[in-house]
Amino acid sequence: MLVVQKFGGSSVADVEHIQRVAKRIYSYASRGDQVVAVVSAMGDTTDELIDLSQQITKKPSRREMDILMTAGERISMSLLAMAVTELGVKAKSFTGQQAGIFTNEEYGKAHIADVVPERISKTLAKGQVAIVAGFQGLHKGSRDVTTLGRGGSDTTAVALAAALKADVCEIYSDVDGVFTADPRICPKAHKIAAVEYDEMLEMAASGAKILALRCVEYARRFNVKVHVRSSFSDKEGTIIGKETKMDVEDLEAPLITGIAHDSSESKVTIVGVPDRPGVAARVFELMSSKDINVDMIVQNVSTQVQGYTDISFTLPSSQGNSAIEALSAVKDQVGFNRIELDDRVGKVSLIGVGMKTNSGVSSKFFAALRDADVNVEMISTSEIRISVITRANQLPAAVQALHTAFELDSEQEEAVVYGGTGR
Amino acid sequence: MLVVQKFGGSSVADVEHIQRVAKRIYSYASRGDQVVAVVSAMGDTTDELIDLSQQITKKPSRREMDILMTAGERISMSLLAMAVTELGVKAKSFTGQQAGIFTNEEYGKAHIADVVPERISKTLAKGQVAIVAGFQGLHKGSRDVTTLGRGGSDTTAVALAAALKADVCEIYSDVDGVFTADPRICPKAHKIAAVEYDEMLEMAASGAKILALRCVEYARRFNVKVHVRSSFSDKEGTIIGKETKMDVEDLEAPLITGIAHDSSESKVTIVGVPDRPGVAARVFELMSSKDINVDMIVQNVSTQVQGYTDISFTLPSSQGNSAIEALSAVKDQVGFNRIELDDRVGKVSLIGVGMKTNSGVSSKFFAALRDADVNVEMISTSEIRISVITRANQLPAAVQALHTAFELDSEQEEAVVYGGTGR
Repeated sequence: MLVVQKFGGSSVADVEHIQRVAKRIYSYASRGDQVVAVVSAMGDTTDELIDLSQQITKKPSRREMDILMTAGERISMSLLAMAVTELGVKAKSFTGQQAGIFTNEEYGKAHIADVVPERISKTLAKGQVAIVAGFQGLHKGSRDVTTLGRGGSDTTAVALAAALKADVCEIYSDVDGVFTADPRICPKAHKIAAVEYDEMLEMAASGAKILALRCVEYARRFNVKVHVRSSFSDKEGTIIGKETKMDVEDLEAPLITGIAHDSSESKVTIVGVPDRPGVAARVFELMSSKDINVDMIVQNVSTQVQGYTDISFTLPSSQGNSAIEALSAVKDQVGFNRIELDDRVGKVSLIGVGMKTNSGVSSKFFAALRDADVNVEMISTSEIRISVITRANQLPAAVQALHTAFELDSEQEEAVVYGGTGR
Repeated sequence: MLVVQKFGGSSVADVEHIQRVAKRIYSYASRGDQVVAVVSAMGDTTDELIDLSQQITKKPSRREMDILMTAGERISMSLLAMAVTELGVKAKSFTGQQAGIFTNEEYGKAHIADVVPERISKTLAKGQVAIVAGFQGLHKGSRDVTTLGRGGSDTTAVALAAALKADVCEIYSDVDGVFTADPRICPKAHKIAAVEYDEMLEMAASGAKILALRCVEYARRFNVKVHVRSSFSDKEGTIIGKETKMDVEDLEAPLITGIAHDSSESKVTIVGVPDRPGVAARVFELMSSKDINVDMIVQNVSTQVQGYTDISFTLPSSQGNSAIEALSAVKDQVGFNRIELDDRVGKVSLIGVGMKTNSGVSSKFFAALRDADVNVEMISTSEIRISVITRANQLPAAVQALHTAFELDSEQEEAVVYGGTGR
């Protein structure tokens, strides 16, 4: 079996952790598997490097930041290669460039353009383990080192798995897998055995932090089977794949896979917009030109200015000020009345491929929220998802109510920590 | 003017030091000079990385050690590029590979095979400063990262200066320049304005730690003018070049340039060796095959075993045990009596191109040592150097006596620290 394994920063935080990861790699390799391990930087290394750069300049060149950041993976990858070799299976480490990860030139958030892992294939063919620096690549044109940004190491792992036609890509973190809801909010949440790509995409987009959206997109595009699991146990985690549920679940599988929530968004309302064609387009073109990620949109008759409409949309809270600034600059041209920014909103989403073929899901959804006294401010749906915006302080009640209503509550509480992966 | 500047680990130990170095680079660049700065890793970074690897394995792969070690320069070079850019001159950092430093495949002590600094030239042509990671290169065949070993950053700087036809290569450290003797031993030692390559080679080989031998050899081969100076002041240091003394000194220049000493060697004596042709060759071929650096050699009639000879030679103390081990293994074949290892020896050397054409130097040398009651155990000479082995505890007296005898004492004591450079 050819396995790509990805270990995040917390899994290689110190020498002891590195040795534990090495043992896991060794246990696969010594039973005959071909293993490629993708690693992030050790624990706080990245934060320490960012801190050093901040002491020097508030506006570092992105090219220099990228070369600085990649120092971290160089350390973890070579130490891990030593630790695996010490156990008795020869391991060699490779930078992103050496592993054939080529990207575009977007320093700090580069996209993978090409994967040519010939050195990795040769290493595996010799019966050796390949350790690869996650999160980094090379822009061929400039021959400069780039980093992939958030979710970058996971994406490196999935991209290598795709190029090497790996049997599975295991993503290790401090989390046991994908859960029906965040166990910190919903103690009766349970681990899901399998989810389909589309569901995982919707969950990632809806605030579940276990895998970055781009990583799931990459996996779906190249049909890479992903196994999300804990580096602190041998328990099975969650399999993400195409129709993988068929293997695992019975015909009476629940309609709903899980509930995601997100409290990192804000709501912008443009009050008193002239009700003319093209005005909304103008607003959202502007947001797009500023790289602002607009999520949900609602337009309705203004409750505040007669004869005009109000446009509300949500975006990451970190982009709230940029949006306000950009909109204020065109206030006279667009002719709106004023802008409101509300960062005390939350989003709760119900996700499941089962809802495609089942009526009654949305009525049960809104009934559950009503019974829990949760006020719905905005609604957005896809074939396999319903999302609503509520007050942020109502999020926990909303998650719990939906979890119970859709019969996701497990008999006993599982003792888990549901965190997020960094790079 | 095109200047290559090299800053050692102590010069970039922390953010404050990096900013100080950036100011120096800026002062050159803003007056119109083209500047290439070669940097070592910050302060203790290298030791910390070695420590981490030692926690994992006592016998790390040299390939992995090299990739690990190069993380240090990545951090210092990108931070320095940011610091220079922050002052107002754009700077870009380059790894050894990006700077076109190609080496052979001797991990950990690679030799430079080729220098193709096209990216550096392009950067300079744009009026930008190039920051280059010292100590590292790429082996083209394997596409693996290598490190250059001791003196590697200095050698990187000199190699780039040669390839770029720089006007001067400035080597910055915590030392003011090359001194007539170690001021810690000889308080009346003074800084030398200029030395010739041959003298500097002899001084480096004789224990002066200011520049590695390989770096001086490289500079001589490509006729690179080297300026050794302090990163903590603007004082002129020492110029190393071909006949540079002509510019600086008068016709009545002193015969002698300086006195070097070395207490890092040990003496091995093979007692009772059969006096047959080929025996000595056998011994030194063996030492060579074990990569042991034999320095001085003396063979004479055995004072201890009649009809046999004793062979004595010196080597770095760190290699003493390897030598004993290798020799013991061939004891019966060679047929010697026993081996003695003496690590309480010291070497003192007198160096100066002036002694070529001057008689009387050696008689004055031995008279001075005799008057200081220093016992001479071994002697070796070149055209511009006399070295002797003495007891280690007699070294200070020997240095002082020679310094005075050859009229090197300065009027007042210079307040300096005479240290060594690491990489």
